[in-house]
Amino acid sequence: MAITLDLLGSLGYSENWFTINSFYLDISIKIDVRYDIVSNVNALSNYLFVKEQSKKYLPTMLEVITQPPSVAQNTPDTKPPILVIGGAEDKVNFREILSTFWSRSGGSESVLAIVPSASREPAILGGRYEAIFNEMGSKDIKVLDIRDRSQGEDPQFREYVERCTGIFLTGGDQLRLCGLLSETSIIERIRQRVHSGEVTLAGTSAGAAVMGHHMIAGGGSAESPNRSLVELTTGLGMIPEVIVDQHFHNRNRMARLLSAVCAYPERLAIGIDEDTCAMFERDGTVRILGKGTVTVVDAREMSYTNRDEAGTQDPLSLHNLRLHVLSRGDVYHINKNLALPKNDTTNDQNCPL
Amino acid sequence: MAITLDLLGSLGYSENWFTINSFYLDISIKIDVRYDIVSNVNALSNYLFVKEQSKKYLPTMLEVITQPPSVAQNTPDTKPPILVIGGAEDKVNFREILSTFWSRSGGSESVLAIVPSASREPAILGGRYEAIFNEMGSKDIKVLDIRDRSQGEDPQFREYVERCTGIFLTGGDQLRLCGLLSETSIIERIRQRVHSGEVTLAGTSAGAAVMGHHMIAGGGSAESPNRSLVELTTGLGMIPEVIVDQHFHNRNRMARLLSAVCAYPERLAIGIDEDTCAMFERDGTVRILGKGTVTVVDAREMSYTNRDEAGTQDPLSLHNLRLHVLSRGDVYHINKNLALPKNDTTNDQNCPL
Repeated sequence: MAITLDLLGSLGYSENWFTINSFYLDISIKIDVRYDIVSNVNALSNYLFVKEQSKKYLPTMLEVITQPPSVAQNTPDTKPPILVIGGAEDKVNFREILSTFWSRSGGSESVLAIVPSASREPAILGGRYEAIFNEMGSKDIKVLDIRDRSQGEDPQFREYVERCTGIFLTGGDQLRLCGLLSETSIIERIRQRVHSGEVTLAGTSAGAAVMGHHMIAGGGSAESPNRSLVELTTGLGMIPEVIVDQHFHNRNRMARLLSAVCAYPERLAIGIDEDTCAMFERDGTVRILGKGTVTVVDAREMSYTNRDEAGTQDPLSLHNLRLHVLSRGDVYHINKNLALPKNDTTNDQNCPL
Repeated sequence: MAITLDLLGSLGYSENWFTINSFYLDISIKIDVRYDIVSNVNALSNYLFVKEQSKKYLPTMLEVITQPPSVAQNTPDTKPPILVIGGAEDKVNFREILSTFWSRSGGSESVLAIVPSASREPAILGGRYEAIFNEMGSKDIKVLDIRDRSQGEDPQFREYVERCTGIFLTGGDQLRLCGLLSETSIIERIRQRVHSGEVTLAGTSAGAAVMGHHMIAGGGSAESPNRSLVELTTGLGMIPEVIVDQHFHNRNRMARLLSAVCAYPERLAIGIDEDTCAMFERDGTVRILGKGTVTVVDAREMSYTNRDEAGTQDPLSLHNLRLHVLSRGDVYHINKNLALPKNDTTNDQNCPL
């Protein structure tokens, strides 16, 4: 019986919680509340971000939990998503984002690869994620500790990638990650499998930055948007149509994201805060998880920029952009250029709960 | 002969410059290039921001200067504007913004009031601006050094305000400025004269922050937009329909401006960088001066926010905002919700050059 008293205390509904849980969940097994619910009733995971304000969410949770089990069990089996995480995701408490990756990769049946190559401490960081997913219940986890480009052709790694259900790119330095992996046969195969919708992919911080075709490699803040404020290069192209920035509001990166999208206005610029995730589903929807915001800067209808005439440090004009700030549960439809709140009925078909 | 060699050296066209200037301007008088042109051909001032990249602007300047003088002299006599300045405006070099305020207040015929009450060093700061405008050629300048609310009823100050052609609000602390001036008869009369279009008004930094009906009194950065990230109170209502932030990209204030406009989406949120000015004309156009950008966040068509349900530190959703980043010479039409580049012919009627 591993339901912690801390959690129950913060909920303040310990008896109900027990009663309800015992109705649907097998509490005779050793459980952690969140993991157990995630693995048993996968679709519930979105409701289980029980932080300080947990009382606020409890009515919704109760409502969901008291639905007949068949509703949850009839959840459509959505295709593997891509989770783009703004860095510093919760690794010790409710781990909403990591457990969503884990459950969408197959939960206890998952076959996981961790790619720590962005980091200069790949063994330590890879080991940390391995322990987390192992604790969640994965048996089959391998750290693909690629430290030189020749390992990007390693037949054993390649074979493992072939049978993976989930791949996780850690943080570090996005230039290092691309330098080691770009155009190796392993990353080409990962991209093929991701594009075919065969495998769930997640990347955090540097691992998020590499998702687009164009990649923000570095830059500054505390300046007017200008060409020299952002360093742009080529990413791994997992979601070619976006330009991702991470640690977004936490590191005040709006001006650099604007400077980036000014160069490639046909791409969608997405700034993701720490412990926050933009989860790209295969149907063109992006769902927000975690504790911060996802900022979408849509310059696809930009009416004017002075970028072609501007010197490298001149201020940039960008006229007529669309801006969305999205928080937990909100959904953005990439193809419809439409943001919808979490309770909008239009979201129902994509959000079984 | 006060044309400085520095300026000529940076232009690299010293001989042409002399030749051209001597064609239209009386260089037999003691002149500073910028002041002389501003006072003699007021409408040229926009072209005289000769910074490091001065060569880039020179062709345009030459073209303008070689037009017959009658073109410049036929400039429509526009009504007094309101200059909202992002702080740290150039006070020692070309002083584009301050000289535009000065010339739009009547140039050498101006009657100027400087209100330094936002500052804790009002005499020093007031004196500094007095010296600047005096050097530009104003004879009639008074520092309205209001340090307690009773002075806000001072008949001498009140009489002076009555005949002013330009009023300048310095930087400091916007709460101090409002605390000293709100609802005094002097500020009420200033607001009346500003609203009637009888006097040019400028405010920098704290003096800019007070322009709206709602005022940003303080706040933070490096967080997801949230209700506690911005402190909102009531400003002086000179341009009631806007919420102004200043030192904008320089101090990474996008998240706090988003948090502010989320509370009052019917107001236009305007973030002004340092040494940059949004000049509000009486016809609803806003022209950008200076070296940075003016960011317009238009939430008037916001389709959703979670603000009413959000806790004070919860991340805010703001869906479907319009965003413009404007730089020098660009024009924003408030009523048409339209941004136009500096060379757009639609701007001609508002931009005599």
